[in-house]
Amino acid sequence: MDFTEKTLTSKYVYNGKVIDVRKDDIEVSNGHKSVREVVEHSGGVTMLALKDNGNILFVKQFRYPIKSVSIELPAGKLEKGEDPDEAAKRELEEETGYISDTWIKLGYIYTSVGFCDEKLYLYFAKDLKYKKENPDEDEIIQCEEYSIPQVLEMIDNGIISDAKTICTILRARKYLNYD
Amino acid sequence: MDFTEKTLTSKYVYNGKVIDVRKDDIEVSNGHKSVREVVEHSGGVTMLALKDNGNILFVKQFRYPIKSVSIELPAGKLEKGEDPDEAAKRELEEETGYISDTWIKLGYIYTSVGFCDEKLYLYFAKDLKYKKENPDEDEIIQCEEYSIPQVLEMIDNGIISDAKTICTILRARKYLNYD
Repeated sequence: MDFTEKTLTSKYVYNGKVIDVRKDDIEVSNGHKSVREVVEHSGGVTMLALKDNGNILFVKQFRYPIKSVSIELPAGKLEKGEDPDEAAKRELEEETGYISDTWIKLGYIYTSVGFCDEKLYLYFAKDLKYKKENPDEDEIIQCEEYSIPQVLEMIDNGIISDAKTICTILRARKYLNYD
Repeated sequence: MDFTEKTLTSKYVYNGKVIDVRKDDIEVSNGHKSVREVVEHSGGVTMLALKDNGNILFVKQFRYPIKSVSIELPAGKLEKGEDPDEAAKRELEEETGYISDTWIKLGYIYTSVGFCDEKLYLYFAKDLKYKKENPDEDEIIQCEEYSIPQVLEMIDNGIISDAKTICTILRARKYLNYD
């Protein structure tokens, strides 16, 4: 089966700080024509950092697009051309103050394939050492930590509703011994 | 701790078919000012449909923003004002041909809280009956089915990298008996 969609025309309708937006005319392999709106994003990293006491590090912050406070794993955007492995280390330290020499890659996810190219690389880190947090000045974040059973309950009852966080918990399950 | 971010000014920079984009000037509770770009999306539904043979229904399709074929749970956008429960039934039938009277709600997720308000309602359906699929004419999709161990392996090895799919598998784990 031919799934391909061919680009006929492509133009940017918005160029911003975090995102660019494109509007493309396309042709599906059955000959049908359509429009695809695409949000371009530089991608990012999400880190599941497990403390020696068995708790997982979280950050609590206001998320402007959904106008509410969200509890999530530490995460961050990739700077232009930045290596995801380096970004993961940088963002974990900035947001939580912890560093680690033991990093395990958990692949990547696409957050919203219908209209957006955002790709997030997921990581598991353990053997943490506390150094010093250093968040961005336009972010008010609070670090928290929860046990694995607490995290699973918070996912089930909806207190955790952030997609990258839930995906990382599932990808890391063999390191968390809950499966 | 005061996490709130106050809107100072707000304007639309793009109004499209699937998304609108806003650029807001905001003030963080520490007095720091910043800009927030927000992609507005009407939200959607994602359905984990379990067949009597123990397999889960999937759809395979080209995803234009990531320029590749993606294997995902059946899903769809909410029409303006549409009830998510109704959308779940409609989309499952359109994409796979299956209907069900046994629906269990699995809450919702936010796909990308940093810059987007997209909210997806997740569902589990069983006791399926085959009726007739009826996909949109600008979508080429192929239905597939996989066992639960296959699905977990495909999540671990990255064949499944779609966030909503992975989140739904984790939220449904008590109905899939893998935890």
